[in-house]
Amino acid sequence: MSKPYVLGVDIGGTNTVFGIVDARGHVIASDSIKTRKHANFDDYVAELHDGVERLLNANDAEDKIQGIGMGAPNGNYYTGEILNPPNLPWGPVIPLAEKVSKAFGGIPVAITNDANAAALGEMTYGAARGMKDFIMITLGTGVGSGIVVNGQLVYGHDGFAGELGHVIVKRNNGRVCGCGRTGCLEAYCSATGVARTAREFLEIRTEPSALRDLQIEDITSKDVYDAAVAGDKLAKEIFEYTGTILGQAMADMVAFSSPQAIILFGGLAKSGELLMRPLKEAFDKSLLPIFKERMPKIILSELKESDAAVLGASALGWEAKYHYEAPGGAIAPVED
Amino acid sequence: MSKPYVLGVDIGGTNTVFGIVDARGHVIASDSIKTRKHANFDDYVAELHDGVERLLNANDAEDKIQGIGMGAPNGNYYTGEILNPPNLPWGPVIPLAEKVSKAFGGIPVAITNDANAAALGEMTYGAARGMKDFIMITLGTGVGSGIVVNGQLVYGHDGFAGELGHVIVKRNNGRVCGCGRTGCLEAYCSATGVARTAREFLEIRTEPSALRDLQIEDITSKDVYDAAVAGDKLAKEIFEYTGTILGQAMADMVAFSSPQAIILFGGLAKSGELLMRPLKEAFDKSLLPIFKERMPKIILSELKESDAAVLGASALGWEAKYHYEAPGGAIAPVED
Repeated sequence: MSKPYVLGVDIGGTNTVFGIVDARGHVIASDSIKTRKHANFDDYVAELHDGVERLLNANDAEDKIQGIGMGAPNGNYYTGEILNPPNLPWGPVIPLAEKVSKAFGGIPVAITNDANAAALGEMTYGAARGMKDFIMITLGTGVGSGIVVNGQLVYGHDGFAGELGHVIVKRNNGRVCGCGRTGCLEAYCSATGVARTAREFLEIRTEPSALRDLQIEDITSKDVYDAAVAGDKLAKEIFEYTGTILGQAMADMVAFSSPQAIILFGGLAKSGELLMRPLKEAFDKSLLPIFKERMPKIILSELKESDAAVLGASALGWEAKYHYEAPGGAIAPVED
Repeated sequence: MSKPYVLGVDIGGTNTVFGIVDARGHVIASDSIKTRKHANFDDYVAELHDGVERLLNANDAEDKIQGIGMGAPNGNYYTGEILNPPNLPWGPVIPLAEKVSKAFGGIPVAITNDANAAALGEMTYGAARGMKDFIMITLGTGVGSGIVVNGQLVYGHDGFAGELGHVIVKRNNGRVCGCGRTGCLEAYCSATGVARTAREFLEIRTEPSALRDLQIEDITSKDVYDAAVAGDKLAKEIFEYTGTILGQAMADMVAFSSPQAIILFGGLAKSGELLMRPLKEAFDKSLLPIFKERMPKIILSELKESDAAVLGASALGWEAKYHYEAPGGAIAPVED
């Protein structure tokens, strides 16, 4: 018989958040540990295990976990490994699913990257319930994406599909991106991208702006947002610039999979009309006419931001049985 | 019991080609009619029916057709209709599947656009047999695409997914495209795109070229190819330019669905190293590093060009029973 809960684990560059989640998407309880405390990955898994055990004990949930779903940067659904993680102290290859399943006595574990987990969370518990075709864009420090086609997450032949933060939006003289190339969407439309735009605009232009009162190297997307809300013209133009690039890029995404909706998630997505007006204008203008017959919706995530990472990861826990099993302690991908 | 043959029908702007195909992908016999002869769509269907009947009679195949698969520009898999066909004399909405199924006494009919049909043909009979994730790019008068994810063709929420000929490759000062926008891949990397590049290069530059002996408005991609093969430096640069743009665009496609292979089809794809060398160089250089672990292959279609359109359309005929049925003459989409 299936058990009533899953465990969702989100491995971020700073914190690892984990929570017990029920089938309706309620986070029963959650806690966190510091991701970077242990240079040795086994020590990290041991601390994660201790923390989870405490949480399970406190909530009378010890034998009630159906599966563990985990979201991690560069987490690979097929192999259960994290490959060349950009912000984690271990690597280059981390056998995450195997180690965690072993530590938890063989509970099935499935992993994917954080943006894919967000898409699964939205489909299972959020704004994409009932949708078979949608794209999730996460606007955080970077830009991530999870793509759902025909009701299934798109993993691609190697498990790494859905890197829409790294489509090229400026072919010539584009900004250097963290991936080592230039001109990526992420270099413009992430929180750090907005801060970079602010620095560029302040250097190139001469008009007054409240942003000039700040140390230019310390400006954040939050500073730009606050200034724009207060009416600062330059700050508004920074959002105009960001939204336009994102809306144009999103029109190209529609040419690929013709989704019913594109769902935005993350701090920057909550900038309201400052971002959404130029974004929607550019999207409408850039969309191939045939897609206007049944216009894709642009909507915001319905998941509470504090719960979303855990919820998204947990959604994968329900199907974890199909992918990792541990008969006699051996962990192996299983065909479904 | 299932029947041994399907009928494949490819509706092109000039000719409608149809053929009887067996389960191994052999075209038993084929014929064609002129697409634009009849201003009235019913008359066109009647002539198609007559032509097919003659072919079936001559090949003792009258009661042996399992289903009819049809490829047509803007053909919609979900609705069975052609919507706003760019090069056909009927419209704006053509109820293709319904009319054809009725004309053929209720044989199930499934339709899609021509590039999707090509992808299905490649998956059923060609270079993509056994692949679950690949992208088909057709380089003809225009640029079309068919995307397969998880072994299924990507139709999107409205049936119009896979318009990769209309992703934007030049954001600023791009060429006007037939779709009414500017900067589309199709405006650069189709046969007509190559001819446009030739005209641009000849106007902007001053160096000698065999292409200058031709009437500039009449230059075709074939002329450019012939000149390049003969060693003409400017003609070679035109292919360099075309291949580079296509390779860069293909790297962005990988960021979406991480396919095992991208398969090229159509006249321009047969330009050999003239196109493939710059294309592969640009692709390798532009690809996000994580995808280089299991590098997507760039390969040519294995289908004979004369058969490919019919074969591709026919592949859809095998599954047509799942989508259109005609109990009592009524045609309705059926859930599978």
